Amino acid sequence: MRALVKPAPGVGMVVRDVPVPTIGSQDVLIRVLYAGVCGTDLHIWEWDRWASNRLKPPVTIGHEFSGVIEKLGHEAEAEGLLKVGDLVTAEGHIICGHCIPCRTGNGHLCMRTRIIGVDRDGAFADYIAMPASNVMKLDDVPPEIGAIMDPIGNAVHTVLEGHDVPGSNVFVLGCGPIGCFAVGVARAAGASLVIASDLNPNRLEIAKAMGAHATLDARSEDVVARVRELTRGNGADLVCEMSGHPVGHAQAFAAARVGGRVNMLGTPSTTTEVDFARDVIFKGLTLYGVTGRRMYHTWIAMKRFLRTGQLDPRPVVTHRFPMERIEEAIGVIKDGQAGKVILEVSA
Amino acid sequence: MRALVKPAPGVGMVVRDVPVPTIGSQDVLIRVLYAGVCGTDLHIWEWDRWASNRLKPPVTIGHEFSGVIEKLGHEAEAEGLLKVGDLVTAEGHIICGHCIPCRTGNGHLCMRTRIIGVDRDGAFADYIAMPASNVMKLDDVPPEIGAIMDPIGNAVHTVLEGHDVPGSNVFVLGCGPIGCFAVGVARAAGASLVIASDLNPNRLEIAKAMGAHATLDARSEDVVARVRELTRGNGADLVCEMSGHPVGHAQAFAAARVGGRVNMLGTPSTTTEVDFARDVIFKGLTLYGVTGRRMYHTWIAMKRFLRTGQLDPRPVVTHRFPMERIEEAIGVIKDGQAGKVILEVSA
Amino acid sequence: MRALVKPAPGVGMVVRDVPVPTIGSQDVLIRVLYAGVCGTDLHIWEWDRWASNRLKPPVTIGHEFSGVIEKLGHEAEAEGLLKVGDLVTAEGHIICGHCIPCRTGNGHLCMRTRIIGVDRDGAFADYIAMPASNVMKLDDVPPEIGAIMDPIGNAVHTVLEGHDVPGSNVFVLGCGPIGCFAVGVARAAGASLVIASDLNPNRLEIAKAMGAHATLDARSEDVVARVRELTRGNGADLVCEMSGHPVGHAQAFAAARVGGRVNMLGTPSTTTEVDFARDVIFKGLTLYGVTGRRMYHTWIAMKRFLRTGQLDPRPVVTHRFPMERIEEAIGVIKDGQAGKVILEVSA
Amino acid sequence: MRALVKPAPGVGMVVRDVPVPTIGSQDVLIRVLYAGVCGTDLHIWEWDRWASNRLKPPVTIGHEFSGVIEKLGHEAEAEGLLKVGDLVTAEGHIICGHCIPCRTGNGHLCMRTRIIGVDRDGAFADYIAMPASNVMKLDDVPPEIGAIMDPIGNAVHTVLEGHDVPGSNVFVLGCGPIGCFAVGVARAAGASLVIASDLNPNRLEIAKAMGAHATLDARSEDVVARVRELTRGNGADLVCEMSGHPVGHAQAFAAARVGGRVNMLGTPSTTTEVDFARDVIFKGLTLYGVTGRRMYHTWIAMKRFLRTGQLDPRPVVTHRFPMERIEEAIGVIKDGQAGKVILEVSA
Repeated sequence: MRALVKPAPGVGMVVRDVPVPTIGSQDVLIRVLYAGVCGTDLHIWEWDRWASNRLKPPVTIGHEFSGVIEKLGHEAEAEGLLKVGDLVTAEGHIICGHCIPCRTGNGHLCMRTRIIGVDRDGAFADYIAMPASNVMKLDDVPPEIGAIMDPIGNAVHTVLEGHDVPGSNVFVLGCGPIGCFAVGVARAAGASLVIASDLNPNRLEIAKAMGAHATLDARSEDVVARVRELTRGNGADLVCEMSGHPVGHAQAFAAARVGGRVNMLGTPSTTTEVDFARDVIFKGLTLYGVTGRRMYHTWIAMKRFLRTGQLDPRPVVTHRFPMERIEEAIGVIKDGQAGKVILEVSA
Repeated sequence: MRALVKPAPGVGMVVRDVPVPTIGSQDVLIRVLYAGVCGTDLHIWEWDRWASNRLKPPVTIGHEFSGVIEKLGHEAEAEGLLKVGDLVTAEGHIICGHCIPCRTGNGHLCMRTRIIGVDRDGAFADYIAMPASNVMKLDDVPPEIGAIMDPIGNAVHTVLEGHDVPGSNVFVLGCGPIGCFAVGVARAAGASLVIASDLNPNRLEIAKAMGAHATLDARSEDVVARVRELTRGNGADLVCEMSGHPVGHAQAFAAARVGGRVNMLGTPSTTTEVDFARDVIFKGLTLYGVTGRRMYHTWIAMKRFLRTGQLDPRPVVTHRFPMERIEEAIGVIKDGQAGKVILEVSA
Repeated sequence: MRALVKPAPGVGMVVRDVPVPTIGSQDVLIRVLYAGVCGTDLHIWEWDRWASNRLKPPVTIGHEFSGVIEKLGHEAEAEGLLKVGDLVTAEGHIICGHCIPCRTGNGHLCMRTRIIGVDRDGAFADYIAMPASNVMKLDDVPPEIGAIMDPIGNAVHTVLEGHDVPGSNVFVLGCGPIGCFAVGVARAAGASLVIASDLNPNRLEIAKAMGAHATLDARSEDVVARVRELTRGNGADLVCEMSGHPVGHAQAFAAARVGGRVNMLGTPSTTTEVDFARDVIFKGLTLYGVTGRRMYHTWIAMKRFLRTGQLDPRPVVTHRFPMERIEEAIGVIKDGQAGKVILEVSA
Repeated sequence: MRALVKPAPGVGMVVRDVPVPTIGSQDVLIRVLYAGVCGTDLHIWEWDRWASNRLKPPVTIGHEFSGVIEKLGHEAEAEGLLKVGDLVTAEGHIICGHCIPCRTGNGHLCMRTRIIGVDRDGAFADYIAMPASNVMKLDDVPPEIGAIMDPIGNAVHTVLEGHDVPGSNVFVLGCGPIGCFAVGVARAAGASLVIASDLNPNRLEIAKAMGAHATLDARSEDVVARVRELTRGNGADLVCEMSGHPVGHAQAFAAARVGGRVNMLGTPSTTTEVDFARDVIFKGLTLYGVTGRRMYHTWIAMKRFLRTGQLDPRPVVTHRFPMERIEEAIGVIKDGQAGKVILEVSA
């Protein structure tokens, strides 16, 4: 079968012919229809420090996908919950089930997680093997959308975690694809005010299309002052920090209201200087680090949002390429102009 | 000033001339614009067992209202948070602040609550005195709506309590005014599916206008079977029990999903036989009794829902009367045909 | 191997020679050391309505046990988390991982649960096969105690669920083995006052040995009045309803404080008449039905309580029998005089 | 009456004769028995930047105290909940009740808080006036202990906030008085393991006397490695950051387990460089800033801990002085050798 492979340490990926994966007794084999290209895939392409420390080539890349079940291991089949022909997507974190995080409702933080397309073969391929327990049926969600439920799920996790969204004022700081999804999720979840900021006007347009009540251009506006003004002086109940940048952090802490919450998803590449006394302790702030998706609360809420149309992620999808044109896909992401980029695999 | 008074034990109420209330140092005097008529007022009118045990006539009736601040006690004034001319409504439970419920976030369950229009003079009058701390500014909520934030708040409490509404399946059982408000609140709060049932087709029409995805006529449909069907066999995540009837209770417990929740607001006048093993223990169900409004989480969320238009309660308001025509107001409620009934006081 | 089997519909069980179970790739084979005898086993022995509806003989009985790992399926072995010789116990609910309860943190309510010793072969046998993910290492917990972590876990679930135990007043109503464990758990978890009631003075003695500050003899004392008195008139913050009896329910609802919680574990065999208005709605009470153990929060907390000695369940263990003497074990349970009864299997 | 007053900008305080405070209708007048001296009082004595920006001399200092009610305003008296002769302490944050934090359960973060001994006259005086709603009866708590319920309450807030203490592993980083109280609170609340660290061996001795299972000397031990070792490699479920120092922050983030929580109370005087990617986001950590005490959950739990003897704070109290000897009291605190210092006022 075809697979997009990081063949050896170094920049780039190649399309290769590799064997169809074998499956264990509790696994399913999925024919991939669509796959999403993620910032992580860019890191892998570029072979940055993180990638070179973590990946052991050769490895098939890709962790966001949808597909059709082609075959089931005998125990997975015996369960009778999945069957050949089911349209599905899957949680890409394969977890141990035994560590303290796994056993206390934090499987997304499993101390032995193996991520598809990173620690084991991924989804930029004609077929992928997945444990049946990681597989989610799409039901009525179209497969193009199913392919990006991984990053939409990041947004759901960021928006819903640890506070009550209905009636709240949410500030999404950073409008990459996950930030834009977060805008839509906050609207779907009943936020009363959703403010989005970015440096890039194209992205602010997407945020607006996703339902932001107000968009702030961080190049020209005093973001913190504007959030305060829009929230009658209180600040935001929840800030979704999607920029991963020290400047974003400072804005996030300042824009959050007293007693509020900052859920941080953007991954910084540098450290940030924090005035804990002023910004966290005297404000009674809560900061929370977002990794992955809650397994599986996030998926349940997300599927319902998508099925009902409460959340329509399509404005975020700006590009589609056949799998072979991965270099172009990586290029538009690197450019910073793309929203979400989808690969057409065998669709 | 004019006041609608229960003058002595017995049926009915009378409009009387009474002195304008005096205010304490931390109170405000409010000129009443609109007031809502509640099922409780019907009980008081009829002088049923509950009313005759609780009220000590003469007492001015009415606990749902909006108005204009006319005067402030000197400490309330010194605070500088409210001023003459402010359009306001108020939480009608005046609480002690010292009992265990008050001191553990359950002020709505204060063991020494005094309710306006029940335990002290109420709002069916030209003026009412209220502690400043119970007063809520209307900001941009119109006074006709402000007058019914008490019962809307009951609905907010019932829908939002103890579970995450976004993406959930909510079943509202009983479509009196608070049930209909609950439908709207569930929609505003991001529920993915809102089902409403009642015996009365007029009320189902109102529920539909408030946003119910499906309405079930309990006279002709198998309510539990239909909820299961609409929820893909799972049952409802949350049931809002607004009927207060043993038949409603049985349906509520059966229609809730395994691990689900039944928030009970409808006040039954009889006991209910419950199969705790089947309906609660083996299902891992949570039942919760709803009294009043959370002070003041409920009010904050509600005000935002109303201000943004996420929640528009107007379809529920079916009748308006001048205060003098209270008998007609009571009549349409008794009839069971009314949605919410509003009294025009000095508006 | 030896196994205690319900061979066919009808009263009783027999010790039989049966094949050692085969294991799947993700299973482990455990040599059983000790096993606990549960009220459920009495129902199975007696072949009551529940048992005759649920069990499909022949089936090996027993769901509480500890043992030593003898063999691992190849995938379980590859994980490297368990190894031959490990002392272990196991969660006896084998769950699907796909249903809404499983996917929203309520695996103990799985809609397709298969319970060992009920729906599949159990632990009253020389060997049992278990999925590796259900297995819990004992670490420093002695195997005799490990054998009863299933019912201790029921108590942990009942005491810790949905409220903050530290500094709270807990009333345990019904002092069978799980009630007595609940007394110890409440003390371990920092309750400030633990009250226990029962009709049986022997059981009250055990409750006292487990740390109850006060024990109430329900035959001679006004239980509700005494709970009120001991809680300065407030009532209990948490009532653990372990009696499963309508009289117990009435006492539980009346003894709970306004805004309090009743966690119900005792399984009633009849219905209960409930005054929801008085007992639940006006009191703002929460009722919760306890099934099984939270998978696996309950286990983590429990293991730490046991390892540190915060919880010492030994006063509850009143009898030990070799497996062959099951009839005597059942007899002392039926008698109502026993605390916890342990079978020595291959220890 | 006598009062310890900051008479004007500058270092020091003086004992002065001032008028007995007048009380409003909802206030009580309290004769002070004991008062606690806090690090904040040291800042005020020294007249540092914070103090000189915040205080408007002349002001009577002191915010931790116990006393006897001498007089009640007429509305406070009419309530009938407090009476002359009651032994009491009080929450020193006097809040507005109208802002978003006040109205959403975060009164301790009130945007208009006025703190006694800082923003209005305090407790180092023969008498203090307090709003009745801030007053807490001591019931059976001795007045010497009542005088330090403010800082004990800080510890209760830090330990109990946002996670389940029973069965958890708690690491208290920094053993000043509040850190030492936190050790005792964690034990009272059912923590399975309590580890304490400090640079000062005297303080570690106090932490040990308060119940720490392990104490770490941060001068000579690798604190993070030792916490990991003591928690079987997992890290602490909860870290109470009481040092307010960047080195402490780094240790706190590293010592917390994946998915754990760091509640931060120590107030830093500098900024801290944080690696959010490594320490917060990939670990799924929650950070929370602790201000004051939850009003009034913290007080309820604390009073029960103290009344039952679950928490005995006396090992932390190292010095007592008559009020006139404030300079010595300040001196021993400045020295860093003191635990908690108490002033005998009119006791």
